[in-house]
Amino acid sequence: MGNKSLSKHSTCLVFSILLNFLLFGYNLYFSTVDDGGLSWSRGAAEEAEAVAAISCSGHGRAYLDGVTSGDLPVCECNTCYGGRDCSKFSPSCSADVDSGNPLFLEPYWRQRAAASALVVSGWHRMGYSFPDGTNISPELERHIRQLHAVVGNAVTEGRFIVFGAGSTQLLNAAVHALSPDVPSTSSTVVATAPFYPIYELQTEYFASVDFQYQGDTSLWIAGGNSSSTIIEFVTSPNNPDGKLNEAVLKGPNFKAIYDRAYYWPHFTPIPAADDGELKIFTLSKLTGHAGSRFGWAIVKDEDVYNKMLMHMQLNTMGVSRDTQLRALKLLKTIMAEGGGRTIFDFGYQTMKSRWEKLRKVVSVSKRFSLQDVSSHYCVFSGRVRESSPAYGWLKCEREEESDCYGVLKAAGIIGRGGSVFYATDRNVRLSLIKTRDDFDLLVDKLQKLVSAEQDEEEGGGDGNGIEQHVANVTEYQPLRRRM
Amino acid sequence: MGNKSLSKHSTCLVFSILLNFLLFGYNLYFSTVDDGGLSWSRGAAEEAEAVAAISCSGHGRAYLDGVTSGDLPVCECNTCYGGRDCSKFSPSCSADVDSGNPLFLEPYWRQRAAASALVVSGWHRMGYSFPDGTNISPELERHIRQLHAVVGNAVTEGRFIVFGAGSTQLLNAAVHALSPDVPSTSSTVVATAPFYPIYELQTEYFASVDFQYQGDTSLWIAGGNSSSTIIEFVTSPNNPDGKLNEAVLKGPNFKAIYDRAYYWPHFTPIPAADDGELKIFTLSKLTGHAGSRFGWAIVKDEDVYNKMLMHMQLNTMGVSRDTQLRALKLLKTIMAEGGGRTIFDFGYQTMKSRWEKLRKVVSVSKRFSLQDVSSHYCVFSGRVRESSPAYGWLKCEREEESDCYGVLKAAGIIGRGGSVFYATDRNVRLSLIKTRDDFDLLVDKLQKLVSAEQDEEEGGGDGNGIEQHVANVTEYQPLRRRM
Repeated sequence: MGNKSLSKHSTCLVFSILLNFLLFGYNLYFSTVDDGGLSWSRGAAEEAEAVAAISCSGHGRAYLDGVTSGDLPVCECNTCYGGRDCSKFSPSCSADVDSGNPLFLEPYWRQRAAASALVVSGWHRMGYSFPDGTNISPELERHIRQLHAVVGNAVTEGRFIVFGAGSTQLLNAAVHALSPDVPSTSSTVVATAPFYPIYELQTEYFASVDFQYQGDTSLWIAGGNSSSTIIEFVTSPNNPDGKLNEAVLKGPNFKAIYDRAYYWPHFTPIPAADDGELKIFTLSKLTGHAGSRFGWAIVKDEDVYNKMLMHMQLNTMGVSRDTQLRALKLLKTIMAEGGGRTIFDFGYQTMKSRWEKLRKVVSVSKRFSLQDVSSHYCVFSGRVRESSPAYGWLKCEREEESDCYGVLKAAGIIGRGGSVFYATDRNVRLSLIKTRDDFDLLVDKLQKLVSAEQDEEEGGGDGNGIEQHVANVTEYQPLRRRM
Repeated sequence: MGNKSLSKHSTCLVFSILLNFLLFGYNLYFSTVDDGGLSWSRGAAEEAEAVAAISCSGHGRAYLDGVTSGDLPVCECNTCYGGRDCSKFSPSCSADVDSGNPLFLEPYWRQRAAASALVVSGWHRMGYSFPDGTNISPELERHIRQLHAVVGNAVTEGRFIVFGAGSTQLLNAAVHALSPDVPSTSSTVVATAPFYPIYELQTEYFASVDFQYQGDTSLWIAGGNSSSTIIEFVTSPNNPDGKLNEAVLKGPNFKAIYDRAYYWPHFTPIPAADDGELKIFTLSKLTGHAGSRFGWAIVKDEDVYNKMLMHMQLNTMGVSRDTQLRALKLLKTIMAEGGGRTIFDFGYQTMKSRWEKLRKVVSVSKRFSLQDVSSHYCVFSGRVRESSPAYGWLKCEREEESDCYGVLKAAGIIGRGGSVFYATDRNVRLSLIKTRDDFDLLVDKLQKLVSAEQDEEEGGGDGNGIEQHVANVTEYQPLRRRM
């Protein structure tokens, strides 16, 4: 061996050390720029993850398209929360349970971040049409049919499907399509109170020569001898009260539009698949994506289907292909897990738990009551189940409290007065599908109201009823939030 | 030194080699699983890149939501191309230049894959409202105003902006908003032929008690003494002929809706910023994303603005938040490059080059002519420029060829007949904004027609005119495509 061997060893060693350095350097360099196989989508992915990582204390979230402060979008906080990271609770803030914003499903999607993420390329589907010449995604339609088959809430075999920007656009399209094309005849549009006000507002706003809104169904039950077409809106489960309504009017001139927005296991047992002529569904109350504005109608009659397609074409040239892509991703995510059943377990458990809490509070009250909910055999769950409606339909039982909306408002609860639904303000709709923060705050405020009622009864009261509650409300201290 | 030193060297060497192996193994392992810092978005990014990598021979593209074959979506081919990878050209296929599908901008976005990619989280903006309570993204509105400032095509200061599902939805919203709310009065809607047919179709389809379509402006020029509101649609540049139209009717009862879909430097010099009361723009002809269904109206009068907002609310509850997110990403991409000017250089160069080719072919013909295009000083480019309209408005000059649409169709060119635009079929609209394949095929077919015309003139013709062209067409051999 000797020097020659040593020199060989040294060369080897130098080479080896050099190699180490090279590999180390490579590693160091590529640990920051190594794209792990990704190229053009990497920057967007990093941006989205950076935004998702912004902490909003569990009481808000930052969005990619939010208003920015510096480089990053700011937190958008839940009602009653504020500050840079949504950690500041406002003690004097009212529980806002007015809108039907379906954020109760937000945690479901946060828990499925990877499965539900979507990357849209800059050149994604720029054109007007799908290859079949329509503006309806065949893949999305297929997934919708599959989902209905899993849930058992609608017959889709041999039916046509039309897409719309939420159920909103489809409601009016259906009225147009069901109204006869006969000059100087006009169909009549009705609904049974309490009902979702957009039926009337929309029908009146779009004030067509072909149809007009003409009040409650009750006025028309005896009017079966009318020769003109009467179109009845049926919301089932009903908004606001959750009842599984059926069409009131029956006869050759009567046509029903079933608004099935809430006909999902989150909110109701599914007694049977809707086999009717025209039923409308929406992503909003299924996946919680109200903002996406995506709905669909399932239509039996080909003429009605063609008229609704024409409506969509002339109104908006169909639904945004971006929205269709997103809806497809969401439905794929749902269908890939538990055979499409998991989201309904999540939704139902959330709604059931909220109803239990709400009922517990109201049950000890004589001043307030909630609607009765029915139980039915549910083809989806295979057992008898109680409804867990999207809204509480609270009633003020005291004779003098006919303005129940005002009573609640004074106690820091913003509901939606019954008069909005063509009932009286003795009822108030309480949205139970908003964030957990909104729901918890509702329960806290209601609890205070009911406790004050108990105190009055037990101690004979201090004689200033609601005024005391208002005082309580203004002195309201934040509870420890559970999120 | 000796053995001790050798042993030290050996230890060092063994260690060094071991380290090499470790680093190499680490590298090997993590080059496949290292997520380079990404977590939940990685899978979606990989999926999107896999789809984008599907080869469609430059004559098509695969989309994430395409119909699948196996695990991957199939290629969606350009017209006249087929086969699994769109490499099969159909010799007998007609040039389809019917629709205004703005795919001429697709290469712009493919070249900016990284800048224009978008990652949407599953929980992105599920709710109805932005933090300000509206359904209009403040960031998107801000970018729209910035873009108009760069281009100089519309005054936005002190104006309101309403979003709609493409210009389509906004056109009808504007008619509604401009029609007075006076019972039993109805406004009149007019346009000057040739015009975009949706104005009439939409106005008639939605057949409101508040307005009706009543023909060409020319019928109303003398009718200035009418006391009812007359709403004039002005498309400028005009569809189909590219003219920079102005409102024909002027007076206290006349209201104009300016459809500014084509008022971008791709298609026209910009003589001045539109300072009018109500102008409508759309993403479709700006970025080429017709499928996204996104447009906006710039409105001077607050009442009209509020009415349009109400229309959007009752019709669709605003524009899909997913679409707004995508539109924002696209505008951000545009604005980040060349101060927002690059896309117009690309668009203008493409259109200019297409016009040069088209004119060259038609210029030697006596049988066909194209519309004259005007030149104007352009505030965007700072010089006098010729128009490069989205459509050729081809005319058959031979007395007997009044059905120009039929003449072209027989020669394998599917245009859109003038009668669709309330002109006669002596004119045909040729879309110049589709894919390069579509345009090249148009030029090839036109070239054949014009060459046959030259042959006829020089050789006295073979007496069977158009029939010969049909024969030519059926024998048509594929050219070497240049993409």
